Amino acid sequence: MLERIEHRACFGGWQDVYEHASRALGCTMRFGVYLPPQAAAPGARMPVLYWLSGLTCTEQNFITKAGAQRYAAEHGVVVVAPDTSPRGEHVPDADGYDLGKGAGFYLNATQAPWATHYRMHDYVVEELPTLVEAQFPVDDRRAISGHSMGGHGALVLALRNPGRYRSVSAFAPIVAPSQVPWGEKAFTAYLGEDRAAWREWDACALLAGASERLPLLVDQGEGDEFLDTQLRPDLLRAACAEAGHPLTLRLQPGYDHSYYFMASFIGDHLAHHARALQA
Amino acid sequence: MLERIEHRACFGGWQDVYEHASRALGCTMRFGVYLPPQAAAPGARMPVLYWLSGLTCTEQNFITKAGAQRYAAEHGVVVVAPDTSPRGEHVPDADGYDLGKGAGFYLNATQAPWATHYRMHDYVVEELPTLVEAQFPVDDRRAISGHSMGGHGALVLALRNPGRYRSVSAFAPIVAPSQVPWGEKAFTAYLGEDRAAWREWDACALLAGASERLPLLVDQGEGDEFLDTQLRPDLLRAACAEAGHPLTLRLQPGYDHSYYFMASFIGDHLAHHARALQA
Repeated sequence: MLERIEHRACFGGWQDVYEHASRALGCTMRFGVYLPPQAAAPGARMPVLYWLSGLTCTEQNFITKAGAQRYAAEHGVVVVAPDTSPRGEHVPDADGYDLGKGAGFYLNATQAPWATHYRMHDYVVEELPTLVEAQFPVDDRRAISGHSMGGHGALVLALRNPGRYRSVSAFAPIVAPSQVPWGEKAFTAYLGEDRAAWREWDACALLAGASERLPLLVDQGEGDEFLDTQLRPDLLRAACAEAGHPLTLRLQPGYDHSYYFMASFIGDHLAHHARALQA
Repeated sequence: MLERIEHRACFGGWQDVYEHASRALGCTMRFGVYLPPQAAAPGARMPVLYWLSGLTCTEQNFITKAGAQRYAAEHGVVVVAPDTSPRGEHVPDADGYDLGKGAGFYLNATQAPWATHYRMHDYVVEELPTLVEAQFPVDDRRAISGHSMGGHGALVLALRNPGRYRSVSAFAPIVAPSQVPWGEKAFTAYLGEDRAAWREWDACALLAGASERLPLLVDQGEGDEFLDTQLRPDLLRAACAEAGHPLTLRLQPGYDHSYYFMASFIGDHLAHHARALQA
């Protein structure tokens, strides 16, 4: 059961928000869908970019602040923006912004009390696309991108699921969660103390065994307040060099971790994904 | 004393927020300034677009949601976005979102307890431009625009101050506040019961005596939930026809009162203002 709770004209198309009962997460979830003007044509089947947001976000942040709709309308791409964790009073939470609600890290948790609801990998990779492809005028051409924790999500989901996405990009991603405080805290809680299990959810660790060579496009602000402590693009560069994996890493002077940074370059990312999706 | 409290790279320029002590309003105020990349050139003197926001907004809404920076960067226009009322614990307020803080209506109040602080006309027309023109790489080429209550502000400030602005536009403006509930409530409180005094702050009433023929560009969503009760573009069309005043009124099918509407057409408004500012 899919209920439309927002419906707003935007750049000739529609920015909608839907609510549905998620089986993977065991709760009610919301997601944004931008339908570009081309989606209204009879028989249209559009490609989809999945956008994964960062810590503290809901489905609202990206759709209200990034300005992606203009470019999605230009290129004819549907953009689906899920929430960042399971939601609801019955869902476990933690103090702080970096664990629990708003901080799902796009993995399947194995530890109590998280394992029941925190299955964002399965939600984003399987349940949500199945729903979207059944209910909207789209086909199975998929791309994925995200910011910060969501950039980690985009890289990890693409690396774990070869063949599923035609392109991947990220803004200021957490590239090596096993090696930085945000990731160490979340992975300890969601996955347990055994660091061997963390490798399956760490982009830099996954690159060594990647069977697909999907080029990575990454933008990173040099003025980002989390650059050296949490993001560490140097580790991504080293891991890609080691694995022989194609990487375009753009260090953007002056830019910080905010939506002003993303808004400035989201047009480049939409163009990148549109090329791959429409090739 | 001007204090910079935000400084964020955006589309090659900087989206800043400043705080200062306002003499006109008797309180501390914040405003956003977008400095496009061209402003960094030695000796640059840029034109300025003043943006007036609607009910409940602060200086943040427009700068985070409208996506205007892209177009301001393209055209080389500085965008200044003030708050919508005086602020602070010592400033009178009222219950409800449509009177008091967040609802200054860009006028000079004459009635107690409002008259001391609620002088947004003088702040926006005089104090703020004087400050901006002294502190930033701009000259006295000014344009003005706004949304809803701020669209009312843009129209009224331009009509009351011939020669001060080179261009004016509005999104979903309150064009005849004397004749609609939002305006009647605010004007009764700020200006008193005598409706004769209201005419000086009502765009449709001011058009009859306008000495300047500055063309009005107005976008209005046909799906706007306030269209028939508060906005009444029909009254603007009639008043312009009566006065022989040039008006481009664009009714946009499906669009509502939100920032999704503004984001969709702000590029057209920036282009309109840039043409006038750079002529």
